[in-house]
Amino acid sequence: MSKLVVVGTVAFDAIETPFGKTDKILGGAATFIGLAASQFKADTAIVSVVGGDFPQEYLDLLANKNIDISAIEVVKEGKTFFWKGRYHNDLNSRDTLDTQLNVLADFQPVVPADYRDARIVMLGNLHPAVQLSVLSQMTAKEKLVILDTMNFWMDNTLDLLKEVIAKVDVITINDEEARQLTGEYSLVVAARKIHAMGPQYIVIKKGENGALLFHDEEIFFAPALPLEEVFDPTGAGDTFAGGFAGYLAKTEDFSFEGMKNAVIYGSTLASFCVEKFGTERMQGLTSKEVHQRLEQFKSLTQFEIALV
Amino acid sequence: MSKLVVVGTVAFDAIETPFGKTDKILGGAATFIGLAASQFKADTAIVSVVGGDFPQEYLDLLANKNIDISAIEVVKEGKTFFWKGRYHNDLNSRDTLDTQLNVLADFQPVVPADYRDARIVMLGNLHPAVQLSVLSQMTAKEKLVILDTMNFWMDNTLDLLKEVIAKVDVITINDEEARQLTGEYSLVVAARKIHAMGPQYIVIKKGENGALLFHDEEIFFAPALPLEEVFDPTGAGDTFAGGFAGYLAKTEDFSFEGMKNAVIYGSTLASFCVEKFGTERMQGLTSKEVHQRLEQFKSLTQFEIALV
Repeated sequence: MSKLVVVGTVAFDAIETPFGKTDKILGGAATFIGLAASQFKADTAIVSVVGGDFPQEYLDLLANKNIDISAIEVVKEGKTFFWKGRYHNDLNSRDTLDTQLNVLADFQPVVPADYRDARIVMLGNLHPAVQLSVLSQMTAKEKLVILDTMNFWMDNTLDLLKEVIAKVDVITINDEEARQLTGEYSLVVAARKIHAMGPQYIVIKKGENGALLFHDEEIFFAPALPLEEVFDPTGAGDTFAGGFAGYLAKTEDFSFEGMKNAVIYGSTLASFCVEKFGTERMQGLTSKEVHQRLEQFKSLTQFEIALV
Repeated sequence: MSKLVVVGTVAFDAIETPFGKTDKILGGAATFIGLAASQFKADTAIVSVVGGDFPQEYLDLLANKNIDISAIEVVKEGKTFFWKGRYHNDLNSRDTLDTQLNVLADFQPVVPADYRDARIVMLGNLHPAVQLSVLSQMTAKEKLVILDTMNFWMDNTLDLLKEVIAKVDVITINDEEARQLTGEYSLVVAARKIHAMGPQYIVIKKGENGALLFHDEEIFFAPALPLEEVFDPTGAGDTFAGGFAGYLAKTEDFSFEGMKNAVIYGSTLASFCVEKFGTERMQGLTSKEVHQRLEQFKSLTQFEIALV
């Protein structure tokens, strides 16, 4: 089992979906990643920052999942990062109604001393400069660095982002972002171009249409589990990344087969995330539920075929 | 091995994609279905109609695939059905530029006497009245009827279409059409509603995002093979249906496992169809190529997972 360092936002979200709306609730990339990874019981630390307005109960919630929260800096006089969004009727697209960086604007991440030798580093969606700073603090010779990012950083800090991409082993990115980053429509061609930028493994997330894993000329595909109802997609991509990273921290199997299984665990955990608002479904999720859904995943995808 | 009756258009298509354009070339639902099904060497007859302008070489092409073309009526003084379309840059959507029904307007299908006892009936996309007429001519007590249809018939002849749906065992339909037919966004819920309309098996096609097979509470998913380049999507859905029907004609295995394999063969054959204009790729397709791609399909989707 490896130690896992997660850097990303710990935040307030306010969400509107066709099914309802919330006031400020617990959100943030590192929150979803940490909750998903906690299913694997690897030693996990979150590196992040919140304001004095952040409720102790939210920090307790993470700590009670055995997540090390000592590197979540609390800026007493500051306010926590806040995002407000509204999903369209198909839940596949959304409008950002408000973004307040607050304490995130001046965030200087510090990896806890006893986590600097962690073998797994999960760089959640954040300013590439923060991701680079975290990477520079890590000391393990053989480590696996996983990057999640989004179009905002391609639009605004592309050069810095490319510097990060050159240093990571795995990138998770959605289909539109892969196309934007490479200028290629075909995801097969886009993945090859991203591979040339640095990462050995490229995971392209397609939301309700599943995820593709690329490695050299190998491709693996995992569908999203078909659900009766998607209630709130917020955090699904982060939960996928957290399941992916947590599985690898647990197994330390960085082969293609290991990555395939990590994708499946990521997809499975993400299928729970979208069933309720925010982190609600992930908070009480049991390993029995996860195992049951993995069985569903197998029957959804596995077959025996005879050539005719 | 069962006999297979295919009803659908045999037509001229003129196609524009971002990669080029064609004059009138061989097209039509029954053409693509027949070519795909011919991979399985089941006794197959096409029931359709063409005009005096339809080249003998196109008929020969089908006959040379061992497809019985005696029920492709040639109306000497008439003109063949013609469709002209232009695909958008993403190849996922298209505009119809011209549709000329011609001889299709008065088509009265006649199933050949020695095919009336066929166990597999593939109702390709056509007017529901024509589909009903074909069904009424079939005599086998235990047969499997597969329906393909599209939004045009939902918009214009919904009651008749529902009459057909009530009589079929399998329906193949795309995701937007499933939503239109049921008023449900969730494909899981939509499939349940379509099941209540008649079909035991519901195949929802999602184009480049694969296909879902529903049967009672069971679900199976087959992705589309990720391709470097999709050249022309015309006929991909029909090729899927033809591969599906041809596999079932060959194996006569109508269980859920059999249907899963039929979906995989359909997906695999459709992945060839889109590589060239119209029927070009399907004309010379060998079983060796199909088997190689089935192996790719397996490595794309199959995994061994340990619960952790």
